[in-house]
Amino acid sequence: MNSAPAFAMGLDFGSTSVRAVVVDCRDGREAGSGVWSYRSGEAGVLTDPRRPHLARQNPLDYLEGLRHVVPAALAAAAASRRDFRPEAVIGIGVDATSSTPIPVDAQCRPLAADPHFAGDLDAQAWMWKDHTAIDEAEAITALARERRPRYLAQCGGACSPEWFFSKIWHCQRVAPAVFAAAHAWLEFADFIPAALAGVQDSRAVRAGICAAGHKAMYNDAWGGYPDAEFLAALSPEMAALRERLPRQAVPADQVAGRLTASWAAALGLPAGLPIAVGGIDAHLGAVGAGVAPGRMVAIIGTSACDILVAPPGAAPPEIPGVCGIVPGSVLPDCLGIEAGQCAVGDIMHWFVTEICRGEAALHGRLSAAAAALRPGQSGLLALDWHNGNRSILADARLTGLLVGMTLHTSQADIYRALIEATAFGARRILDQLESHGVGVEDVVACGGIAEKNPLFMQIYADVLGRPMRLSASTQTCALGAAIMGAVAAGTAAGGYASVAQGQEAACAFQERVYRPDPAAAAVYQRLYALYLDLHDSFGRPRTTFDHAGVMKGLLEIRRQAEA
Amino acid sequence: MNSAPAFAMGLDFGSTSVRAVVVDCRDGREAGSGVWSYRSGEAGVLTDPRRPHLARQNPLDYLEGLRHVVPAALAAAAASRRDFRPEAVIGIGVDATSSTPIPVDAQCRPLAADPHFAGDLDAQAWMWKDHTAIDEAEAITALARERRPRYLAQCGGACSPEWFFSKIWHCQRVAPAVFAAAHAWLEFADFIPAALAGVQDSRAVRAGICAAGHKAMYNDAWGGYPDAEFLAALSPEMAALRERLPRQAVPADQVAGRLTASWAAALGLPAGLPIAVGGIDAHLGAVGAGVAPGRMVAIIGTSACDILVAPPGAAPPEIPGVCGIVPGSVLPDCLGIEAGQCAVGDIMHWFVTEICRGEAALHGRLSAAAAALRPGQSGLLALDWHNGNRSILADARLTGLLVGMTLHTSQADIYRALIEATAFGARRILDQLESHGVGVEDVVACGGIAEKNPLFMQIYADVLGRPMRLSASTQTCALGAAIMGAVAAGTAAGGYASVAQGQEAACAFQERVYRPDPAAAAVYQRLYALYLDLHDSFGRPRTTFDHAGVMKGLLEIRRQAEA
Repeated sequence: MNSAPAFAMGLDFGSTSVRAVVVDCRDGREAGSGVWSYRSGEAGVLTDPRRPHLARQNPLDYLEGLRHVVPAALAAAAASRRDFRPEAVIGIGVDATSSTPIPVDAQCRPLAADPHFAGDLDAQAWMWKDHTAIDEAEAITALARERRPRYLAQCGGACSPEWFFSKIWHCQRVAPAVFAAAHAWLEFADFIPAALAGVQDSRAVRAGICAAGHKAMYNDAWGGYPDAEFLAALSPEMAALRERLPRQAVPADQVAGRLTASWAAALGLPAGLPIAVGGIDAHLGAVGAGVAPGRMVAIIGTSACDILVAPPGAAPPEIPGVCGIVPGSVLPDCLGIEAGQCAVGDIMHWFVTEICRGEAALHGRLSAAAAALRPGQSGLLALDWHNGNRSILADARLTGLLVGMTLHTSQADIYRALIEATAFGARRILDQLESHGVGVEDVVACGGIAEKNPLFMQIYADVLGRPMRLSASTQTCALGAAIMGAVAAGTAAGGYASVAQGQEAACAFQERVYRPDPAAAAVYQRLYALYLDLHDSFGRPRTTFDHAGVMKGLLEIRRQAEA
Repeated sequence: MNSAPAFAMGLDFGSTSVRAVVVDCRDGREAGSGVWSYRSGEAGVLTDPRRPHLARQNPLDYLEGLRHVVPAALAAAAASRRDFRPEAVIGIGVDATSSTPIPVDAQCRPLAADPHFAGDLDAQAWMWKDHTAIDEAEAITALARERRPRYLAQCGGACSPEWFFSKIWHCQRVAPAVFAAAHAWLEFADFIPAALAGVQDSRAVRAGICAAGHKAMYNDAWGGYPDAEFLAALSPEMAALRERLPRQAVPADQVAGRLTASWAAALGLPAGLPIAVGGIDAHLGAVGAGVAPGRMVAIIGTSACDILVAPPGAAPPEIPGVCGIVPGSVLPDCLGIEAGQCAVGDIMHWFVTEICRGEAALHGRLSAAAAALRPGQSGLLALDWHNGNRSILADARLTGLLVGMTLHTSQADIYRALIEATAFGARRILDQLESHGVGVEDVVACGGIAEKNPLFMQIYADVLGRPMRLSASTQTCALGAAIMGAVAAGTAAGGYASVAQGQEAACAFQERVYRPDPAAAAVYQRLYALYLDLHDSFGRPRTTFDHAGVMKGLLEIRRQAEA
């Protein structure tokens, strides 16, 4: 490694804002950053009261954001570090939400930039949490089960309405004019590097294996995206579209292109900088948080994403109900495994704002009151499916459940039960992984909820039965992206030889470790058994269960908790 | 009937206040009334944060209340009716909550009046909703199942913690000093007439068959209260207590005694006035609302009580899960049948105050918003067991459940689902009655919730599939008590020859009839099938059920509701 200071730029495109972080390659520390909230819609999200499952974003916000955050991060770095100059930036990495497909024209420009489609919700970026394509996801799942079971094997057994082809096909059905006008569709994480590198041919875009593998059923083993015959069963136009999608998907440590002169001028960076292939925010966040075999990274925010890696051959090609197992998707030389929960912070936010009609400060008061409760004391048990179930059941139509209410049940009781439910959901995922040979020894948490709420951390430690710790960085996604930018730049430029070397240099943990409390863990073990009863009986078809013990079991646990 | 104006006095002892109503015997109209809130505790109820199931009242409040409300009612009658004089009052009827046993000394004075026990919660009136005696109720149920199944047959198959002997036995266990000091225990509805008539021998108190039959397993067929051998199996002292309880229980149209001179002076009424035997508030409320064979009266307030009557021989001696079938308990010449739900208004109150943290006005706003929803549109389904299940399952330990929540679920969605759940609970009771030969053609509702909330009435009509109407009187309990007072006075005094004649003269309905809407009823029929699934699977032991259809079924119903 070069001894002169070298910096990498991580660009992190989240659900409501974009952030640029300048990272010192020697120790991973943040030299400066800038953040900008998307301008369009409410908190950056376009919705339609008549289509409650719709969530879109204006892709022009993404490009505009670059012009704000990159210069701001460079200025901040220059202000804080005497040894910083923009020329010391050696590479750029990019992460973004996924699957967030963007319809583009023949020059890879967003269709939303065409005045003909301005304001057309279907011509915007189809945000990851858009659930309009439920019917299409079910149809694709049914078709794949019949004709291409291996497509589903790597993605948990069911295609999600959140995914690439579900959304594009839904667009064809509900907005045929948009579909016809779109030359191709690019994943958000691929669109940004392509734009910065001036790639104008959608076939030539170097797609990230991360999004392609986990959200678009891409695998080199079967020639990339689902084959034309399969897509033709959806529609002839879907099959034709395949020929205009990126030729190849590769790991995020590869080079996607080099910064154009015009973008370089706009951003204040050197032209020709290597830009790494884009990755999913959660996956690069896991890299930034130090993911490694045996160490899971849980990104607990509005939703939750669990990222694991396993050496090649250490995991089966399929773990039922787990979203994806894709070679190279997290670390280039490991199997990348993703699981997740459709809502965590969103459930707490719903409860506080919609049901309690409280302000953000109510989270603090309810957390404090909930922390005073012992496990089991509320007598409540919940299912955390308010936004569906992603992993294990892979069913977006499932809904929430709360059992055990009495006339004495308080807001804090419910608040705690909802946290516990999300922890049980995470535990169910860990059990599934362990029973398929993917062991988890400890958990690194990141994301807004984990960082803000020690109660969450302790409940998770008690429910998961594993130590939980936090990443030292609060911007693990941007850090992971920056690591990829530094690997793309290579050692000669002062970057890294590999992602592992980058993690070794740049990743660190906070000192506090949340360890399982044996007494709490024992109570949660019993509650978890009841959770499993509800989970399987409400979540799975054609089975019979006996619930008579649920309410009484909760009372018995509560009585003991109060004793 | 005498042509000079005659009036009867109804005394209605509710959960938070006592009310006296002066009723014109010719047409049942209210000539004047007075109301007084119990002074002790919070809203008249004594609680203990360390004993969450405890609910007691100060029995001295009951007596003090008489001195406020009777003179007030007489003054109001004199002010509104030129032909009214206190001497025109011909009789007094009394109703009270039940089972609310009161420990008394050898002169039938409340033990609470003894300075030695002042402030001792266990020496107060044990309010109907006190649930401290859950263990004792279960033990009595088990014992009766083994040795005296006929005791349970008339009361729905299980002894409730709310009942007379459960509470007294619990007192013996937790407060032996109080139990030892109590010469006898009197039901609230028997205590008041005994006090007004100066009865000082507990054996000589004329108990109401209503409370004795429905809440104390009394039946003349087996010699009154449970036999001494049975009670001795609880404890020798419980058996000994039996010999100090009232000798006989009779219908509420009988004379309990005559007003003492001192009470007459205190209240402003003629001495020697006949006082009818006391009845349970809900039962006399049903009389005042016009209960008759085929016409159920549903008293929908904090909890719900369904009262029906059937000609002798028209109903079996036992209907599983129905609280009680007692000859003469409602109308002297019919079988009286009681069923009920442990919480209705209490659930709405809990949701608004504890969960939404709203004021009373929020009920109006949520009702309006909920009324704008179509049946099934919320996607929610609830079990109304926040305070246990009284009828059908007879299990006080059952708890509430809510299923179907999404991130879009609103307060109004839940508010409506909770109303619907209570209606489904009522429907389940009607189905049980009908399948045992007790048909219900229409329903008269009374109670605070029914009178205040048209949404409740329409949902109940749609769910029950029967026309619902309201009593013209808003004080049906006091009216029913007054009818009993007028029957006790007899025709010579200007009263009635029978309860039926009294109902004919005094009962009327409001004009508005809530009729089932066929489209809504069809949706509710489908939701009710899902409710039954949850009801039986969470409520009954040793059975297996398949819930996989519940969440999807709700979504399908919602989708159609939104179409």
